[in-house]
Amino acid sequence: MTYSTINLQDKLNKFSEHWSPKIIARMNDYHFKLVKIQGDFVWHSHAETDEVFIVLEGEMRIEFRDGKVDLHANEMFVVPKGIEHRPYAGQECKILLIEPAGTVNTGNAGGELTADNDTWI
Amino acid sequence: MTYSTINLQDKLNKFSEHWSPKIIARMNDYHFKLVKIQGDFVWHSHAETDEVFIVLEGEMRIEFRDGKVDLHANEMFVVPKGIEHRPYAGQECKILLIEPAGTVNTGNAGGELTADNDTWI
Repeated sequence: MTYSTINLQDKLNKFSEHWSPKIIARMNDYHFKLVKIQGDFVWHSHAETDEVFIVLEGEMRIEFRDGKVDLHANEMFVVPKGIEHRPYAGQECKILLIEPAGTVNTGNAGGELTADNDTWI
Repeated sequence: MTYSTINLQDKLNKFSEHWSPKIIARMNDYHFKLVKIQGDFVWHSHAETDEVFIVLEGEMRIEFRDGKVDLHANEMFVVPKGIEHRPYAGQECKILLIEPAGTVNTGNAGGELTADNDTWI
């Protein structure tokens, strides 16, 4: 049988829009999603799950109601479930998100930045 | 509150032994583990879970009974649950593993390469 790797750069080259997660892999009930971000996202939380951010290229900030964390390439952070947070990137930043399949990017907040949560590339 | 990132390179610098996964993060019931590998591992499978390999540095091969896949830096692969596989690296390779907490590295096979599955760095 032929087995193929998932090349992160090849997948990143396939899209350019911001705040629009693209699924690249599934592990059990979890999805691995690539996202390109720039600017401010909305304050939101995910009541049912933690959420992992791994920065592949660039820099981003995650704001919390009581603090913040700055992430650079090859750094990761786990946002605990239920914790309000707001991602931000001054320049375009490319990240790998890991979370349960079906997780909505804007969590409890909704709004115009809500993206489809089942788009594979 | 102070929030800290998890820097993959800083964590990799903290150990040198091969085939000995070190936990760096938890997301819900899953662990993120860094592993340095070199040489042949044992044939094994994980009956209950898929297993994600992300290569951070170097190259590795995963052999299957009916094929193989070669992974380079910034490539990932999901080994489906129940599928026999054998990791291999000619030179030292540094990888990020993602799998349920408690997963044993040698799966059903056991043996001398079986590592502790609850060591954090």
